[in-house]
Amino acid sequence: MEAAGRVLAKPLRASTAVPPFARAAMDGFAVRARDTFGAAPTNPLALRVTGESRVGRVPERRVVLGCCHRIATGAPMPRGADAVVMFEHCRELRGGLVEVEVAATPSENVGAKGEDVRAGEVLLGAGNDLLAHDIAIAAALGLRRLSVARRPRVGVLSTGNELQRPGRRLRAGEIHDANRPGALAAVALAGGAAVDLGIARDTLGAVRSRIAAGLRRCDAVVVSGGSSAGARDFAPEAVASLGRPGVLIHGVAMRPGYPVGLGAVGRKPVVLLPGSPVAAALCVEEFVLPALRKMLGTGEKRLPRGALVRARAARRIPGAPGLTTFARVVLVERRGGLAADPLRTSGSGILSSLVRGSGLVVIPSSKEGIEEGEEVTVRLLRPRASGPDWDGGG
Amino acid sequence: MEAAGRVLAKPLRASTAVPPFARAAMDGFAVRARDTFGAAPTNPLALRVTGESRVGRVPERRVVLGCCHRIATGAPMPRGADAVVMFEHCRELRGGLVEVEVAATPSENVGAKGEDVRAGEVLLGAGNDLLAHDIAIAAALGLRRLSVARRPRVGVLSTGNELQRPGRRLRAGEIHDANRPGALAAVALAGGAAVDLGIARDTLGAVRSRIAAGLRRCDAVVVSGGSSAGARDFAPEAVASLGRPGVLIHGVAMRPGYPVGLGAVGRKPVVLLPGSPVAAALCVEEFVLPALRKMLGTGEKRLPRGALVRARAARRIPGAPGLTTFARVVLVERRGGLAADPLRTSGSGILSSLVRGSGLVVIPSSKEGIEEGEEVTVRLLRPRASGPDWDGGG
Repeated sequence: MEAAGRVLAKPLRASTAVPPFARAAMDGFAVRARDTFGAAPTNPLALRVTGESRVGRVPERRVVLGCCHRIATGAPMPRGADAVVMFEHCRELRGGLVEVEVAATPSENVGAKGEDVRAGEVLLGAGNDLLAHDIAIAAALGLRRLSVARRPRVGVLSTGNELQRPGRRLRAGEIHDANRPGALAAVALAGGAAVDLGIARDTLGAVRSRIAAGLRRCDAVVVSGGSSAGARDFAPEAVASLGRPGVLIHGVAMRPGYPVGLGAVGRKPVVLLPGSPVAAALCVEEFVLPALRKMLGTGEKRLPRGALVRARAARRIPGAPGLTTFARVVLVERRGGLAADPLRTSGSGILSSLVRGSGLVVIPSSKEGIEEGEEVTVRLLRPRASGPDWDGGG
Repeated sequence: MEAAGRVLAKPLRASTAVPPFARAAMDGFAVRARDTFGAAPTNPLALRVTGESRVGRVPERRVVLGCCHRIATGAPMPRGADAVVMFEHCRELRGGLVEVEVAATPSENVGAKGEDVRAGEVLLGAGNDLLAHDIAIAAALGLRRLSVARRPRVGVLSTGNELQRPGRRLRAGEIHDANRPGALAAVALAGGAAVDLGIARDTLGAVRSRIAAGLRRCDAVVVSGGSSAGARDFAPEAVASLGRPGVLIHGVAMRPGYPVGLGAVGRKPVVLLPGSPVAAALCVEEFVLPALRKMLGTGEKRLPRGALVRARAARRIPGAPGLTTFARVVLVERRGGLAADPLRTSGSGILSSLVRGSGLVVIPSSKEGIEEGEEVTVRLLRPRASGPDWDGGG
């Protein structure tokens, strides 16, 4: 549970098969399929019920020629049996006999061992956010612990003689500091550990000592209000005095946000935010959060879970008339756009389809399915690197 | 900081104006605009520098006829002055004189008191997620506390003799419980307080007493594995015995997820999840999380922050050639789709534009702007009720 919302640090490899044994996918009778060959409503075949397979129990007996076991959905298949005939296709007679009215094919209504997850396979790569479905599959694997990325510590300092903390009365000429609380909140919401470095007065010594303290405690330092070229702006000099390489980029061709400064002390990134609050907030999103995501090991720019993406069906996606169908699809890049390829699963028992799938296609109950090549809306199951639309406003 | 990621419970009303005083938007000289009328590079006008206005200080003197004060960006405007002439348009002479080479218009390069937020106005309604920009504007208002919605307590119970907790060795026929950890994670990630009600054995007494305990401690109860019609499924009966109305809906026309049960005991919702893990996970998303969001006061179905939405520009959105421009827009429903209306702001000081705006339009540096009616991609600044595409797969 504590791993939910964190980032996976090592690939999630299946320690065991899921399910760990072959089991019934329906309530019914576990049979030897060949014993039912030829059965039909007009030609029912009688089998002797010699046992019962219950959920959570190992079946004690073997199913032998001409016999069957009563079985519940999820119960382990008894040895000898290779198919399940649903109750609806059986008629119970007296004397421990049952009439089977359909022929079963081998493995019909049986969930094979490992059909969801095979032992040893990698389900999720490092750098993925751990979402609810991932926690569920980790639980299905019996895992109690997952390796997650440490939350990078990002320190945020504001500089300015005019700045006052929230809750304090303003003296004439003062304003409340907004950039530091905003940046701290952005870091925390993006999965970092936000470290408040306070407000420094506008002197080189004060700014330098606060940045130095931040670099000792944190993996990255953000300074608000010290990036422009005015006389009061000591941050670039302070950073340069603390170690190489210092400020590497001062000024980025964006509006707002032009005066932003990007650099490092040793391997620790330092971002100098413009003092103007919109510029500061956008530079947090454009520079601080991507650095944070890089430290976490996730991709840099991403569409969030739940975003909608247009794609074309790579194959027919079957629906169920009368039911709203939630199909799990994998998105594949194709010339001319994205293709949504439905995952082949044996049904609603395949939890890994929610971990491996890129998204859901919701087919309305009025449709029989989506035809190959038809355009669909995919609701993303996981964050995703965004396409060329991301930055292009036009 | 603790409010980040929570849901606002009461409208956020501005207690004070932001900024709390008129201030310089540029470094330069604070002047009486009328004293500069007629100034030009070929006709510079000389003014006497009689003071300095610094950031965080109250200017002591008044600017009188023929005089000006040196002023820094963000410093309060001295009384008497109504415009700022940028340094670039001034030439300092000896003897405390400065030559002004352009005519200033009244309020030029001045940020008016309350231009970002007027005292008393409502910035954000109840039920909104508190995002980083909201925390920043609350800080700008000097607020130390925000009223947030209590996290609804959602209890999750699994039922089944075959279920084992993660970390425990499986005995033959057993499986690890995945639905309960998955539902708990989903609740926690959606802003609820997840309460683990454990695993109940398949008896009416065990299921009933666990649900009863959950109803005492929680605002809603989710039961996994007790919704189908098999002999082992005691959850509907248990719910019915605990109070009215009981299970109201048993079976929803969806696949997977058909056997889901929806009901309540008193006013507390109860959701009976199918045991099949994909069905359970989807029913959590389709029924449990919307109920949670309703209790939190947020909208039920939402596109997440960061999702991309297509819209048409309601007016021209100016860019800045050579700079990537981040325009804040409000999305408005129009016949035939969404319109993106750019917020009129005086520049990068207007933090409220990130709180009031629906999203950002990113204009590439190669474009001069977006023309009225042109199609644009809007990156959402806040979650948003989704359009008709959400459910329609076709």
